[in-house]
Amino acid sequence: MPHADLLIDNAHIVTMNSRWDEFPRGAVACADGRIIEVGDSDELCQRHTKAPRFDGGGKLLLPGFINAHTHVAMAYFKGLADDLVLQTWLQDHIWPAEQRFLSDQFVHHASLHGAAEMLRGGTTTFCDMYFYEAATARACRQIGIRAHLGEGILSFPAHGHADAAAMIAYNVKYAAHNDDRVRFELAPHAIYTCNRDDLLSVARAAREHGLRVHIHLSETESEVNDCIEKHGMRPVHYLQELGLLGPHVRLAHCVWVDDEEAAILAETGTAVALCTRSHLKLASGFAPLQTFLRHGVKLALGTDSVASNNTLSMFAEMSLVARLHKTLSDDPTFLPAREVVAMCTRDSAAALQRDDLGVVEAGRQADLTLLATDSIEATPLYDVYSHIVYTLGASDVSDVFVGGEHVLRNRKLANVDERELVARARDYAKKVVTQ
Amino acid sequence: MPHADLLIDNAHIVTMNSRWDEFPRGAVACADGRIIEVGDSDELCQRHTKAPRFDGGGKLLLPGFINAHTHVAMAYFKGLADDLVLQTWLQDHIWPAEQRFLSDQFVHHASLHGAAEMLRGGTTTFCDMYFYEAATARACRQIGIRAHLGEGILSFPAHGHADAAAMIAYNVKYAAHNDDRVRFELAPHAIYTCNRDDLLSVARAAREHGLRVHIHLSETESEVNDCIEKHGMRPVHYLQELGLLGPHVRLAHCVWVDDEEAAILAETGTAVALCTRSHLKLASGFAPLQTFLRHGVKLALGTDSVASNNTLSMFAEMSLVARLHKTLSDDPTFLPAREVVAMCTRDSAAALQRDDLGVVEAGRQADLTLLATDSIEATPLYDVYSHIVYTLGASDVSDVFVGGEHVLRNRKLANVDERELVARARDYAKKVVTQ
Repeated sequence: MPHADLLIDNAHIVTMNSRWDEFPRGAVACADGRIIEVGDSDELCQRHTKAPRFDGGGKLLLPGFINAHTHVAMAYFKGLADDLVLQTWLQDHIWPAEQRFLSDQFVHHASLHGAAEMLRGGTTTFCDMYFYEAATARACRQIGIRAHLGEGILSFPAHGHADAAAMIAYNVKYAAHNDDRVRFELAPHAIYTCNRDDLLSVARAAREHGLRVHIHLSETESEVNDCIEKHGMRPVHYLQELGLLGPHVRLAHCVWVDDEEAAILAETGTAVALCTRSHLKLASGFAPLQTFLRHGVKLALGTDSVASNNTLSMFAEMSLVARLHKTLSDDPTFLPAREVVAMCTRDSAAALQRDDLGVVEAGRQADLTLLATDSIEATPLYDVYSHIVYTLGASDVSDVFVGGEHVLRNRKLANVDERELVARARDYAKKVVTQ
Repeated sequence: MPHADLLIDNAHIVTMNSRWDEFPRGAVACADGRIIEVGDSDELCQRHTKAPRFDGGGKLLLPGFINAHTHVAMAYFKGLADDLVLQTWLQDHIWPAEQRFLSDQFVHHASLHGAAEMLRGGTTTFCDMYFYEAATARACRQIGIRAHLGEGILSFPAHGHADAAAMIAYNVKYAAHNDDRVRFELAPHAIYTCNRDDLLSVARAAREHGLRVHIHLSETESEVNDCIEKHGMRPVHYLQELGLLGPHVRLAHCVWVDDEEAAILAETGTAVALCTRSHLKLASGFAPLQTFLRHGVKLALGTDSVASNNTLSMFAEMSLVARLHKTLSDDPTFLPAREVVAMCTRDSAAALQRDDLGVVEAGRQADLTLLATDSIEATPLYDVYSHIVYTLGASDVSDVFVGGEHVLRNRKLANVDERELVARARDYAKKVVTQ
């Protein structure tokens, strides 16, 4: 065992391993950004006497959350336009703002803002699809968050790219520098914005370069109807025909997936990222979560962007998912709290094919979130999983470590000036409203 | 106009009046606990030069929220048992804990804890039904929150009362001391726990003493089926027959109300308090909000208790109601954000027959909530209503005034020691788990 270079002691460790182990007075020893030991606090303190210590203060310590689907650089469009029909919202508000403002610098700044919100909410890894993703990558390394990034691929020119081939090439180019912190993947936007040939090119590039694929699918009923009309089959069948299913593929949304499609997703090991708060707000529908679980589809949760959510809080997603599907399944025992916490940690790591994330155990990345439980709102505490899902929120996150780096310290981000981020967001917003 | 004894200047005033007036750089002048003037900040500062000033710091200022249905003294049972069938939850967990622990002192302490959470979340008035409500009344006066309280009325002995007549008498007795701060009303628990004679007594006492009535109704489908079986009619018809509908009556839940019943509620001016987060968590169902609005039923929002919610945040209720009913009505333009804010302020004041609450305008109580908007999460800000409903949360509340008294100051409660409340909650919780 290497020498520990960080020991977080005196915390209530919620490992999220398959045995649901907890250490009510536990500690985590880390070295070189990885966890090397998890156990009783006193024992670990005796064993790692020389390691720099961080006092967990009796807080809950759990794996950092994984946000499996977002568009982080839309941070400055939070609340720009709400309560509208999807097409009006996109065509009259979001797309014009994107056309006018998107640039490498805008995306860098907005990505810092969105990543700041995620870290402050205990999220340590996110999956992104947008434009100028190289700028998002810089923001991630700067602020200290982990990410899977994909430049949006479209069958028309957009944001500096002439065509889909250029967009694919962009992702392939940056993927050459993939590491544990930032990984590029292929992000075709959707089956209605990418033509058949371009989707086949994506499938080919994924095989050739060993890249993951992240695509929106079946968010609305009309998307499914259009697919049937145009291609004579439902979207999951269409993707299957194109060679775009498999353990390396992650589908965002899947609100309108039927039983047969869910079975195909399970068989092929394709992962699904549900963005429930956004689905409800856009009136997209209720995703068939019970069907997915019955078939054994790999599930993860995401926030989608703040333009449609309007936060990046995984707590808010967990709370809604746990409640909503109890009523939809007419069973208050359905989806117990701990299974919902797993969806944002252990299960989402599996959905990302990241066996180095999502559990507090030796060998995994030291991506750790600490939750304060000493407020009026957070007391009393009977069950940690219930507390995390039904009671606590992003504002209860006190400290966050990513790869052993202490990036949020007593609710202050270590690597950026929060006041500067806030001032900059306001400046951009002024420009956006006067466009 | 009397001399102002408080001037809150430099705030973005969201009046919630029927014209949706806002004063982006506004002020509120108060005297003797009431608002006497609302307007432009500079003008009011010139007019009220001698009034003590509180700098609104550019924050949002809106009417304090009204929580139209809760059981505040269940604060210590938050998260005691979750993800269970209602009857198991009640019979194996909640009722035994209540039998063992409820006392005047327990209810006083737990009410302080719950009221503290409400004030910290911007709620300035709540409607309560529980036991030992005189202790809750003391807690309200101590911490500085406004409340409508009702000792639960049951057709069997409970918590020191021999029968329903004693429970009615308890409420009538304390109602003799009703004032603007604490008002007792009659709180028959439900149609399945009160027999016909006792409900008739409640109706009679309400008429005789001019008291309001607060009752649970049609929370579950089985409650409705039982009512039909036993009384040959649905619950709203049954209450109508008993003389228990009208503007003075507030029904909590109403998940299983049909179109004809909704029409009766609208005609009689009976109010409904929806507790959406609790409904979903208990798998009770989706309340027919669209039907209520179509008929013009008076609506308010409530949290129910932390035992089933598990928070007392009106922000969480607003966010869920706004989103859920968009999908249920298949219309993303349904229930725009501002209408949902009205449900917790202007509309809920009407549901309580309190024309002195719920709007920031001259003559109303100075019950005011200030929201900070300078965090990463709260920037940028385009639309205040969208922000309040979809983005902000209880932790963004910085200051709260109730009747002009500054009861929450920069997130610290003025009238209680929060550390003491937290320590006491933990002590009680230890006893509860070892019962």
